[in-house]
Amino acid sequence: MKKLTENMNFTAKNGLLDRRFFLKAGLGVGGGLLSASAIGSEGKDRFPWMKQPGSGMGESGPSNFESHIKRDSVGTQPGTTGSGASRTPIEHLDGIITPSRLHFERHHSGIPEIDPDQHRLIIHGLVERPLSFSLESLARYQHTSNIQFLECSGNSGGNMMAPQPLQRKASDLHGLVSCSEWGGIPLKVLLEEAGVKPEGKWIVASGSDAAMMSRSVPIEKIMDDAIIATHQNGEPLRPSNGYPMRLFLPGWEGNACVKWLRTIKVTSGPSMTKDETSKYSDLRDDGIAELFTFPMGVKSVITSPSVGLNFAGAGIYQVKGIAWSGSGKIKTVELSADGGNTWAEALLDQHVLSKSLTRFRSAWNWDGTPATIMSRAIDEKGNVQPSRESWFVGRAKNTFYHFNAIQTWAINSAGEVSNVYL
Amino acid sequence: MKKLTENMNFTAKNGLLDRRFFLKAGLGVGGGLLSASAIGSEGKDRFPWMKQPGSGMGESGPSNFESHIKRDSVGTQPGTTGSGASRTPIEHLDGIITPSRLHFERHHSGIPEIDPDQHRLIIHGLVERPLSFSLESLARYQHTSNIQFLECSGNSGGNMMAPQPLQRKASDLHGLVSCSEWGGIPLKVLLEEAGVKPEGKWIVASGSDAAMMSRSVPIEKIMDDAIIATHQNGEPLRPSNGYPMRLFLPGWEGNACVKWLRTIKVTSGPSMTKDETSKYSDLRDDGIAELFTFPMGVKSVITSPSVGLNFAGAGIYQVKGIAWSGSGKIKTVELSADGGNTWAEALLDQHVLSKSLTRFRSAWNWDGTPATIMSRAIDEKGNVQPSRESWFVGRAKNTFYHFNAIQTWAINSAGEVSNVYL
Repeated sequence: MKKLTENMNFTAKNGLLDRRFFLKAGLGVGGGLLSASAIGSEGKDRFPWMKQPGSGMGESGPSNFESHIKRDSVGTQPGTTGSGASRTPIEHLDGIITPSRLHFERHHSGIPEIDPDQHRLIIHGLVERPLSFSLESLARYQHTSNIQFLECSGNSGGNMMAPQPLQRKASDLHGLVSCSEWGGIPLKVLLEEAGVKPEGKWIVASGSDAAMMSRSVPIEKIMDDAIIATHQNGEPLRPSNGYPMRLFLPGWEGNACVKWLRTIKVTSGPSMTKDETSKYSDLRDDGIAELFTFPMGVKSVITSPSVGLNFAGAGIYQVKGIAWSGSGKIKTVELSADGGNTWAEALLDQHVLSKSLTRFRSAWNWDGTPATIMSRAIDEKGNVQPSRESWFVGRAKNTFYHFNAIQTWAINSAGEVSNVYL
Repeated sequence: MKKLTENMNFTAKNGLLDRRFFLKAGLGVGGGLLSASAIGSEGKDRFPWMKQPGSGMGESGPSNFESHIKRDSVGTQPGTTGSGASRTPIEHLDGIITPSRLHFERHHSGIPEIDPDQHRLIIHGLVERPLSFSLESLARYQHTSNIQFLECSGNSGGNMMAPQPLQRKASDLHGLVSCSEWGGIPLKVLLEEAGVKPEGKWIVASGSDAAMMSRSVPIEKIMDDAIIATHQNGEPLRPSNGYPMRLFLPGWEGNACVKWLRTIKVTSGPSMTKDETSKYSDLRDDGIAELFTFPMGVKSVITSPSVGLNFAGAGIYQVKGIAWSGSGKIKTVELSADGGNTWAEALLDQHVLSKSLTRFRSAWNWDGTPATIMSRAIDEKGNVQPSRESWFVGRAKNTFYHFNAIQTWAINSAGEVSNVYL
């Protein structure tokens, strides 16, 4: 594979166009020419909504014409007490923010309805002063806000597990990732108020759901950038995302960002809870399970085209997608339209933020013949998104989490998109 | 008034604390001390939501305990054909993103329900090639996305008009401002495809609502950063914000960002439409009305404390608010707790973006005696938010738009907040 240098304004083979293609004039990509008489016929008489006042103000919901933009797999697994997942419809979104109503969910015992006046956050264990915080007392502390992604470490696992590629939408394959503005209080401030004893090296965070989700986190991460999140996209957390508060660990796997957070216990080592031993561990091919593999790897996925979003004949299309890394900012996203033989640099949108989704785009002049298209993200630490084959090196056949390999889509001559392994 | 230098870590009089106050340890601001037995009593037996699985996944809406967070004044003015406004509940939000359901609204003939398959964007007038774009054809162009505020130029007018300060919530006074990630196509690209003739110096944008809202915009702004917005906070525009497309002019008054956009006509000069002559003009004290005063001024407002959000006794509180400027990034927000005699620099959240809301915060040790608190924003161009008195200089008594003066809140010894003029 050809590696691009940072500033190389390279155009790869098979139709991928210069990333500044659309900033040139006179392309005639999509617009239809109009005659003077046609301009008149596009006028006010044609549309009923121009002839009378529209509806009054209400709940300001989405258009009825966009009702297909919703989360799939919303529901609870049969035979469980509230375990399930729902996925963000990434193939229908643009930009980097995920509306809160479309944020993915994963929980193990349903969504508790917590009375915020009764809820307390308790900090105890290896501290000088065990403390209890009401929401009112937490509101007195200076908050912070940051736009950051959250990803379930089981995201994209279908592409790892299935012997043959699943013909499913991008959201069904990769929709356990979302991006929000997360607001709250640096946990460091509260722990310093409690006074961590010298032997306190980890914490264990527990939720107040019936599953009592509990995860151990090294204190270095807590003191670096962990927050007690109370706000998401400007408003209080929604119950499905941990109302009234959750732990948020920027760039780390979603399960460790314990929702409905009730206790932070400072400990001398990891607590080896059920949630970090029976699950959320990574089995190697030598039979050893790696524990506490928190950071999410560098990753990207083309969301358009993707399965279900087919091309309507040869022509110029916007290729777009999302990239992210638990290690920092995205540096580059490369695209290939010839199965990885040549690569071109995609254009990144204005906001390239640390541990956030980054939106990438390119123009593709599809000639109407079969093609394979793929994206490869590189982060500021130099981590490169692996191929599917290289991801498996050293891993057991039945491991599951942290699958971040390149997604390849094939387009046939009818413009239909399918999921392929390469 | 004392002017602060940029890096002066100054603490103003009357209790405003160093902006890094909360990064120091052991403050005992809000947490209650716990005994070992109390930790046990805060346990699982106490809360019903820990004893049984919670609800299954649904629409992922807000908590029932937060139903007071909604837009006020949602409705249509009596005797009009759909004119009205609703305001963002800024006193209940945090961070910089406004959830789309809480974005302010202002429209003059209701909300049209537009079929996106029938809708066309027409570019005509002084162009070489008049063009018509369907949504499908626009989707082929490379989009862009940016987090930017939108403000009605009539925002805060109540503080200008009312002889005595209105005792209303921050949202009722200043809630015609919101901030979203706006996504769409640079209009420059489409105009270059149409080929602007040399005599084309302005455009007039018209909406397909029954009011046919029409505004003139200089072509320099269009070529600089105007977009045809199709997305807001990741998803398609909501009908209340112009679905399926609107003009978006970063930093410029909301009314010119024509919703339900149908035509862009290139012209040699401004079209002097009803919407920019009878309204949205600024009367000076010499009787001349200034037209086309598009950019929104530098502005800030403390959202907590504010009317309705009172203090519960002396102690340390988080003071927070929002600042913005139509000219670029916010450079500094200064706070005063003694009616403008001394000022201290507030802490700004991580994301300080151009033409976006910026979140500021500070810690205030309120001693329980009457106080007046105010914020003053300064942008990267050096523009300083004016006092109410200085705002009036040169303006007619009954002018209305672009009021960006400092908001002052008074706190009495009972902790009650009121709106005052200073």
